[in-house]
Amino acid sequence: MSTISSISPSQLHGSVKPDNSEAISALQTRFGKQLSTNTTIREQHGHTMTWLANQPPDAVLTVQDKHEVAAAVEICNQYQMPVIAFGIGSSLEGQLNAPYGGLCIDMHAMDAILQVNNEDLTVTVQPGVTREQLNHYLRDTGLFFPIDPGANASIGGMVATRASGTNAVRYGTMKDVVLALEVVTASGDIVRTGTRAKKSAAGYDLTRLMIGSEGTLGIVTEVTLKLFGISECIGSGICHFPTIEDACQAVMLTIQMCLPIARIELLDAMQIKACNQYANLDLTETPTLFVEFHGTEASVAEQAQIFTDIIEEFGGTDFAWDTNEAERKRLWQARHNAYHASSALRPEASALSTDACVPISRLAECVSATAKDIEASGMIGPIVGHVGDGNFHVLLLVDTDNPEEVATANGIISRLASRAIEMDGTCTGEHGIGQGKQKYMQQEHGNALVLMQAIKSALDPKNILNPGKIWPETLTTT
Amino acid sequence: MSTISSISPSQLHGSVKPDNSEAISALQTRFGKQLSTNTTIREQHGHTMTWLANQPPDAVLTVQDKHEVAAAVEICNQYQMPVIAFGIGSSLEGQLNAPYGGLCIDMHAMDAILQVNNEDLTVTVQPGVTREQLNHYLRDTGLFFPIDPGANASIGGMVATRASGTNAVRYGTMKDVVLALEVVTASGDIVRTGTRAKKSAAGYDLTRLMIGSEGTLGIVTEVTLKLFGISECIGSGICHFPTIEDACQAVMLTIQMCLPIARIELLDAMQIKACNQYANLDLTETPTLFVEFHGTEASVAEQAQIFTDIIEEFGGTDFAWDTNEAERKRLWQARHNAYHASSALRPEASALSTDACVPISRLAECVSATAKDIEASGMIGPIVGHVGDGNFHVLLLVDTDNPEEVATANGIISRLASRAIEMDGTCTGEHGIGQGKQKYMQQEHGNALVLMQAIKSALDPKNILNPGKIWPETLTTT
Repeated sequence: MSTISSISPSQLHGSVKPDNSEAISALQTRFGKQLSTNTTIREQHGHTMTWLANQPPDAVLTVQDKHEVAAAVEICNQYQMPVIAFGIGSSLEGQLNAPYGGLCIDMHAMDAILQVNNEDLTVTVQPGVTREQLNHYLRDTGLFFPIDPGANASIGGMVATRASGTNAVRYGTMKDVVLALEVVTASGDIVRTGTRAKKSAAGYDLTRLMIGSEGTLGIVTEVTLKLFGISECIGSGICHFPTIEDACQAVMLTIQMCLPIARIELLDAMQIKACNQYANLDLTETPTLFVEFHGTEASVAEQAQIFTDIIEEFGGTDFAWDTNEAERKRLWQARHNAYHASSALRPEASALSTDACVPISRLAECVSATAKDIEASGMIGPIVGHVGDGNFHVLLLVDTDNPEEVATANGIISRLASRAIEMDGTCTGEHGIGQGKQKYMQQEHGNALVLMQAIKSALDPKNILNPGKIWPETLTTT
Repeated sequence: MSTISSISPSQLHGSVKPDNSEAISALQTRFGKQLSTNTTIREQHGHTMTWLANQPPDAVLTVQDKHEVAAAVEICNQYQMPVIAFGIGSSLEGQLNAPYGGLCIDMHAMDAILQVNNEDLTVTVQPGVTREQLNHYLRDTGLFFPIDPGANASIGGMVATRASGTNAVRYGTMKDVVLALEVVTASGDIVRTGTRAKKSAAGYDLTRLMIGSEGTLGIVTEVTLKLFGISECIGSGICHFPTIEDACQAVMLTIQMCLPIARIELLDAMQIKACNQYANLDLTETPTLFVEFHGTEASVAEQAQIFTDIIEEFGGTDFAWDTNEAERKRLWQARHNAYHASSALRPEASALSTDACVPISRLAECVSATAKDIEASGMIGPIVGHVGDGNFHVLLLVDTDNPEEVATANGIISRLASRAIEMDGTCTGEHGIGQGKQKYMQQEHGNALVLMQAIKSALDPKNILNPGKIWPETLTTT
């Protein structure tokens, strides 16, 4: 690429000063007690839920509004100090680590729900609002916010990582439900992207560019989201299959028939075994689908009937479903417990979650090959999948003090990422790149990386916004 | 903005040479008879369906594959000559004009449907494939491509303008149905964005950045699209309302209730009158909604019943609907004829289509204010809307040789754009900016324009890709 300059890591990081003390002084003068350099607090704002080494920031600033964010970023820009936004710390790939030090801006106090528009099914929130807080607030409106990545993540963090989760098969991911953003740029300006109109053809889609950029292009200070009506009827159920292939084939046909299924989750036999042990259940220990239908009473019943017909083709059995809330919760209990049940299989180990996403026609092959790889390694790694999207997770139980185990786990994760990319999929469907998956960016994106980096360089020329994330350590662009 | 440089129009256009003869010679040497400098052909590739003055390119190149596109762009890059991609020429805001001359690359011969994946509901096509061609090709698969902007547009052009249309309320816009792109960059490199996985969290969303960029960031050479299953049952119907407000209120409640309506179109009284005259119909000449439901037989019947209950609340009458294909076509005939029927109200005039999009809660107010504005001007301008998205069109019938009428029409369009933006909407829901709507970009985007232009400058530093589009003539960034 002759006209688009390729950026080397040294250029990207070259402007970051090793000593940030001048910047910290300037921030202390401006923010006083809102700024903390306490070691414990700094470490709490480092790696969070990952096995990557903790790299704490130099200081943590708790902000109250967008003007404070803008003022802080302006100081960081002036002193060329890294700045990282922090929601609740539930990211999984080291997105919050501070490899070059710098300032962590903790957004948790920016948790106001600014405006609900019942007529338009939209809501505008500050980034520190969590998804559970939002749905609790909406409880009397008949509306809900569907994106559910498992953790009670902050909306700002969910924007940053392009979060999705169990409802994505019907309601989409953050890419689909964010209408507009307010963002503080690298220079400390406050910019608005998008409007409350449902669609627009007016210029570049900055909203989608910011979503999933992991804080490397701007810091989100306001989010306008689409909401959805809570269905008059919800039906949930589970069913069992002889093999993973059978379960995946059933999922594929469900999607092909355009059944408007709200959730369709796969738990493999090991995961079911873990759930049985954890909660004293007696589920058949074979690959199992957990499903949920949203609609009117008649449409839920019709969807359940069509689904019954589908699973019968692939040896699916014992399909139990119900619209009663207590019974629905009982049926889905194993899915809700999946993480803790898996962890309990080896309580002394760390539970490392990785994800990948492939075209649904390759799902059975990808899940099966991954399960075999895990089995061959001797490691414990149950598989849970948002299979309606071709997205699945492996939870590896690893003694992180044992270098051999860590190497084995890394091998499984690497092979899974490559396998997914070779199947025309992606190395991560919803966890993001952070630090953990940088090494797969080249294989997945090839020379498109040069475009991404040209954009990064244009919007953040001093590389102060979450530096050391997304990009691989060594770039070889073709 | 201190670190992001603001780009003045002179900078943007400064690199474009007034004389492109050297570049044309180089292209002639490379492409021979594929290159035409014939005046008629050049003019045919200029303004297309708009009232803006024709600005033909210096030459038109018909290409067969992506390597020819890359080679042509490389030559344009070398000589700093503008390059504009052409699909079928159905854009409405001067997107295809060549104000600085240059090369038009006609993509119509790149019309291969490369791969249908029935299992994944995806298809990969070359950009010259038209939407009707694609749906004809898919006719025996049970699948269809839903985006329907009216014209039989090329898929590449639809990517460029972020097209949508009547089905968008259920199936989304191009932003939602494109999975991956292959793009030739300003330097002539071939880059792939996205994969066939339904979702990804791996890096910046270049796919969404390219969609709607109107050929200013790259030239699309391949598109991977989502497909949808054709519903087993389709029900279509129409109903009449006393006022536009009543019709809009009914639309609003329909959307709020999350009825999965596939189409919901508004025709105002003047449009119905035009349709009656054009096709000798006897529809009640009041605001009218045209609706379509997709689903199983039972679900279509249920949707129609719920819709019946909704419209009764707002004085909707005579709701006639049917699932029989011939009857459905008869009921929707007026909607299909809308453009030609309007034009026939004043056959000697030009029909100028403009669009805007607002939050649905503001739709009634925006449509009514616009209708009053048109009426006060003495101009004929029926209104047709994709109202489920808050998007509507005005078709102004203007004698473009009469400067006073042109000024009046411009006034109506300007006031509509401002009105929509003031209502937290956008100056265009689906037609794009091109040349015609540049003057509203500042009001709609404010200082976010600086980010857009920084991206443009980073990806196309010589400003050869469709220069003079999207950006206002004079920039005043705040």
